[in-house]
Amino acid sequence: MAITVVGSVALDTIETPFGGADNVLGGAASHFTMAASLYDTVNLVAVIGTDFPQPYLDYFEARRVDRRGLQTVEGQTFRWGGRYHLDMNTRDTLFTELGVFAGFAPTLPDDYQQAHVTFLANIQPQLQHGVLRQARAGGASLCALDTMNLWIETAHDDLIDVMRGVDVMLIAEEEARQIANTASLRAAARFILDLGPQMVIVKQGSYGALLYGSDGTFFAAPAYPLAEVRDPTGAGDAFAGGFLGYLARQRATTGTLTPLDYKRGLIHGNILGSFACEDFSVERLRTLTPDDIAARYREFVGFTHFEGTS
Amino acid sequence: MAITVVGSVALDTIETPFGGADNVLGGAASHFTMAASLYDTVNLVAVIGTDFPQPYLDYFEARRVDRRGLQTVEGQTFRWGGRYHLDMNTRDTLFTELGVFAGFAPTLPDDYQQAHVTFLANIQPQLQHGVLRQARAGGASLCALDTMNLWIETAHDDLIDVMRGVDVMLIAEEEARQIANTASLRAAARFILDLGPQMVIVKQGSYGALLYGSDGTFFAAPAYPLAEVRDPTGAGDAFAGGFLGYLARQRATTGTLTPLDYKRGLIHGNILGSFACEDFSVERLRTLTPDDIAARYREFVGFTHFEGTS
Repeated sequence: MAITVVGSVALDTIETPFGGADNVLGGAASHFTMAASLYDTVNLVAVIGTDFPQPYLDYFEARRVDRRGLQTVEGQTFRWGGRYHLDMNTRDTLFTELGVFAGFAPTLPDDYQQAHVTFLANIQPQLQHGVLRQARAGGASLCALDTMNLWIETAHDDLIDVMRGVDVMLIAEEEARQIANTASLRAAARFILDLGPQMVIVKQGSYGALLYGSDGTFFAAPAYPLAEVRDPTGAGDAFAGGFLGYLARQRATTGTLTPLDYKRGLIHGNILGSFACEDFSVERLRTLTPDDIAARYREFVGFTHFEGTS
Repeated sequence: MAITVVGSVALDTIETPFGGADNVLGGAASHFTMAASLYDTVNLVAVIGTDFPQPYLDYFEARRVDRRGLQTVEGQTFRWGGRYHLDMNTRDTLFTELGVFAGFAPTLPDDYQQAHVTFLANIQPQLQHGVLRQARAGGASLCALDTMNLWIETAHDDLIDVMRGVDVMLIAEEEARQIANTASLRAAARFILDLGPQMVIVKQGSYGALLYGSDGTFFAAPAYPLAEVRDPTGAGDAFAGGFLGYLARQRATTGTLTPLDYKRGLIHGNILGSFACEDFSVERLRTLTPDDIAARYREFVGFTHFEGTS
């Protein structure tokens, strides 16, 4: 029954202290799609310009990606440039050229509305809300939302509105604190759950991720201990792809989702996020296999389990 | 066979945005002792002045604490004052009055040297080295070391020397990066293991802790999700007390230590560190029971385990 994602497909120019890449495939929807399509078919809703390189379309073609929702519009594809600092945790935006993305009006093909999972990647909250209404009208069940500090600051009320309507909120740690105006992560998660979502996933970058459920569920997953980070761009979107991709596959297989499925999904999120950091753009995700994922999952079991008696 | 700790016993004055405490029991050795004595007898090696309040001695008296190594010297006990910022993660030192601690020359009573575990809490590396030599001469086996950024900056070579001689190094994340001069934690752990220790514990504060072994062992434990932090002073020492206390008890019980013991020890470290933050000074540690620890251990199992198949 597939996964629908709505977000940006871009051409990124990245500089790090250890190397760089020019006009490579980027954008939240691209990273998400390359991760989630390892688990299930992905319906990709985005916009590209007529300058978009065919080889990147081939990346999607080589995977289970439905491109009927990918609009091509006369003009330039969204371009973003960024430079990472020495610690690889902070970066400066060097340029943002919206191009055809400025007029993006996402429309879901009818059958996309029945996807098992719908992911509203980080775009303007009003656009996210429009997609959410279309998805819900068509019977979409599990709808998940991502955002960024820009929208908390410039579109706060619209963001709160769309948060009220989704099932799962994915949010970075500092943004959770910012939107809830508290230093306590647990209080921030409570604030978000009280708006409506049944689940909040707090992304902590190189520290892993936390899951808070409205039923009191709590789960903590450490990050994979990478020896080297080559490019963290899109790691949060690959995380979302692993998490929601796993949930979509489980739901297609068993017809339901248990708390254990969500916990395992969080591990899959951390796995895909870690692989994403190992190379520029989606290069590592492109060559990734189910066996690679299974091997890293076993490593996660090994370095987090300690048996049950005190 | 007990645990020997060498470090500071102090009187702390703490200010936080939410309250404060004046001249309360502090110092690394105090926090460590109040945590570790829940697991085994603690031999306390420290110095106090003649002004030291009797009620705080009664705290030790109420626990399994051997005070033959606690010297009382004419003069004022070490005093420290600190003020926490709004995020409770950063603090300013308001004053440091060394008092009798300035002349501290730790000497181990003979039978302290055979302790199952020896902890060199954060003091000047040359003093730590002197204690390490005494302990090794008496046959001490598991010797663990803590330090701080001050010694990395002002006594670098002495610190490296004592690190070469210990079995376990406990170190805060940012200090591990600082001493190894790298942004990669994994590389920093490797640097420390190459000096000699068989194990490095990287303390990540509210993110938990990591364990790296020279045999390739890796283990990650998230922190306990506290709703509120009242006073984080000494949490790292309480962490060390839970970790090493558990190891000492296991070794006394089974005669050996397995990799699983170290993993469980790390969980006990996180448990004691989390309790320490719930009140000022050692107040929460003082009322803590084995049942409280066992209950939190079960919570840790619940929010970290996800079963073994992908």
